[in-house]
Amino acid sequence: MTDNDTRHRPLTLLGLGDMGTALARTWLAAGHPLTVWNRTPAKAEALAAEGAAVAGSAAAAVCANTLIVLCLLDDASIATVLDGVDLTGKDLVNLTTGTPAEGRARAAWAEERGARFVDAGIMATPAMIGVPEAGGYVFYSGSRALFDTHRTTLEVPAGARYVGTDPGHAALHDVALLSAMYGLFAGISHAYALIEGEDIAPKDLAPLLSEWLGAMGFFVGNAAERLTSRDFTSGVVSNLAMQVAGSGTLLRTAAGQGVSAELIEPYLNLMRERLDADPAAHAGEDTVGAITLLRRGSGR
Amino acid sequence: MTDNDTRHRPLTLLGLGDMGTALARTWLAAGHPLTVWNRTPAKAEALAAEGAAVAGSAAAAVCANTLIVLCLLDDASIATVLDGVDLTGKDLVNLTTGTPAEGRARAAWAEERGARFVDAGIMATPAMIGVPEAGGYVFYSGSRALFDTHRTTLEVPAGARYVGTDPGHAALHDVALLSAMYGLFAGISHAYALIEGEDIAPKDLAPLLSEWLGAMGFFVGNAAERLTSRDFTSGVVSNLAMQVAGSGTLLRTAAGQGVSAELIEPYLNLMRERLDADPAAHAGEDTVGAITLLRRGSGR
Ligand SMILES: NC(=O)c1ccc[n+]([C@@H]2O[C@H](COP(=O)([O-])OP(=O)(O)OC[C@H]3O[C@@H](n4cnc5c(N)ncnc54)[C@H](OP(=O)(O)O)[C@@H]3O)[C@@H](O)[C@H]2O)c1
Ligand SMILES: NC(=O)c1ccc[n+]([C@@H]2O[C@H](COP(=O)([O-])OP(=O)(O)OC[C@H]3O[C@@H](n4cnc5c(N)ncnc54)[C@H](OP(=O)(O)O)[C@@H]3O)[C@@H](O)[C@H]2O)c1
Repeated sequence: MTDNDTRHRPLTLLGLGDMGTALARTWLAAGHPLTVWNRTPAKAEALAAEGAAVAGSAAAAVCANTLIVLCLLDDASIATVLDGVDLTGKDLVNLTTGTPAEGRARAAWAEERGARFVDAGIMATPAMIGVPEAGGYVFYSGSRALFDTHRTTLEVPAGARYVGTDPGHAALHDVALLSAMYGLFAGISHAYALIEGEDIAPKDLAPLLSEWLGAMGFFVGNAAERLTSRDFTSGVVSNLAMQVAGSGTLLRTAAGQGVSAELIEPYLNLMRERLDADPAAHAGEDTVGAITLLRRGSGR
Repeated sequence: MTDNDTRHRPLTLLGLGDMGTALARTWLAAGHPLTVWNRTPAKAEALAAEGAAVAGSAAAAVCANTLIVLCLLDDASIATVLDGVDLTGKDLVNLTTGTPAEGRARAAWAEERGARFVDAGIMATPAMIGVPEAGGYVFYSGSRALFDTHRTTLEVPAGARYVGTDPGHAALHDVALLSAMYGLFAGISHAYALIEGEDIAPKDLAPLLSEWLGAMGFFVGNAAERLTSRDFTSGVVSNLAMQVAGSGTLLRTAAGQGVSAELIEPYLNLMRERLDADPAAHAGEDTVGAITLLRRGSGR
């Protein structure tokens, strides 16, 4: 077995939580020699029985292979685990969730220590790892050379999507998708809250909601086009003035149903703010224009 | 032509704004004798040339036919337009957007005046009216007998979905879907704001977002099942404690990108509130459990 045998390249995995354990199993099952280490050694026992080499320390685990995969709790635990460990010539793949800033800082930190680095964002749960039909995948960004070298190995547990050399971009893609998901969850939650106590079964609303939200998914492409062209007014289907006027019905319905509007009111307020800033200019706009207001830090 | 000829049943339409005008055209094109009235008479001129009978007053328009369709600005304008008009024996179909409470009150008002009533919520824009492949449709609720009598006529401009005898339920379905849509728009807006100024093209994020949000649409069915069974803990894929722990990464990423978290923070706060209320009981829950907190009026 040499590093040129991409089918069964050896690797080290640090971190055997739920996600790390799921990853480890897929590499072992695919025939990759795998060295593992975990702060709490007990979690490595089952994997040892499945063929993993268990290292006695993080340093020993890192020493064993060139490709080092990190799947720890958070960025701070990486510094703790790798403090004082020689990383010269190593290829670090960081599957630990973090922010773009943490990804960039960790890349610089790795480079100072003579290692190549890619950061990653896992778009999957442990149950989806090693199950291609579940559709999970991982965003990677940072060293293109590292990614190309180890792509085959990295694709064993889940699909791999490389999103550029900026080591912050894997995390940024990850967070962008998760944030959008919470908006979707919030809207769906509000809808179900509205019908609670009414003679409407959630399972009867569900297909209507699914179909409608599927159709409203056009907003993704619509926003991409308008944010690129900066044209918020051509070919508008439902203009901002009409949507702001209609928001009162949504708020009064929530109040009438005894439902807090906290999950939908911020977006309605954002549309109104965009309109009020210059009604003559913005009344005929698509609501995509309101996105331009969000770059104002975390407070208003 | 008699009321039994359902193919070409005559009807009256009050209100010729953008939506009313689009509706009128489809009935005329389908061969329905149509009487129209609008507060501002000029808007009826083009329709007269297309075959509509233009009434000189709302009372005269109502007198002309049994089926009376209202497509006015809001509920208040209905009271203004029909004040003192004899509605005995009429079938009122109210396509004017309103709240469930307005739908119920308007139904009682119509009944007192000897009319049958259905309320409606239009899930379409004027451009989608008379274009079946555009997928627009209308929710109806209230008198089942009225709906069955006029269903064929009502289906001329757009698909018809009857959602029960409660005259508030058409508006409730309408508002539930629109509210969910604004959650979706909010999430998408936040995602695009995060990548603004980065070397990531919106059109490159778009397919990733669409695919991800499509997959996360499972939440609609997941929520319907759990809200019915009240089982928030069996078969959980990503538990509440983990999602609350992960929300810090989303908030710190927003702050790092200079993006206000106003659109996603309320949902993250709601998850945390659910967890904090009883960590032992809720840590392993699906986030659907947080929906039960929303029935608390509009303030917290
Ligand atoms: N689970 C998911 O659904 C999912 C999905 C996407 C991404 N992720 C990401 O994957 C990473 C791992 O998640 P997980 O689900 O495996 O978490 P987990 O089950 O909580 O495991 C956490 C791991 O980090 C280790 N650890 C924590 N603090 C440490 C420290 N100070 N020093 C050394 N080791 C430390 C733990 O070691 P001990 O065993 O000694 O505690 C354990 O191996 C996280 O960044 C998570 O955000 C998870
Ligand atoms: N347009 C859409 O995309 C859309 C989608 C779904 C639902 N809807 C609903 O459809 C209804 C009509 O919408 P629209 O787009 O046609 O609106 P619009 O173009 O603004 O037209 C409003 C209509 O209401 C009339 N009106 C307003 N106040 C009145 C009053 N006090 N007395 C008598 N008539 C009055 C107007 O008459 P004048 O011509 O004299 O002003 C006009 O006919 C609304 O409830 C709207 O929410 C619209």
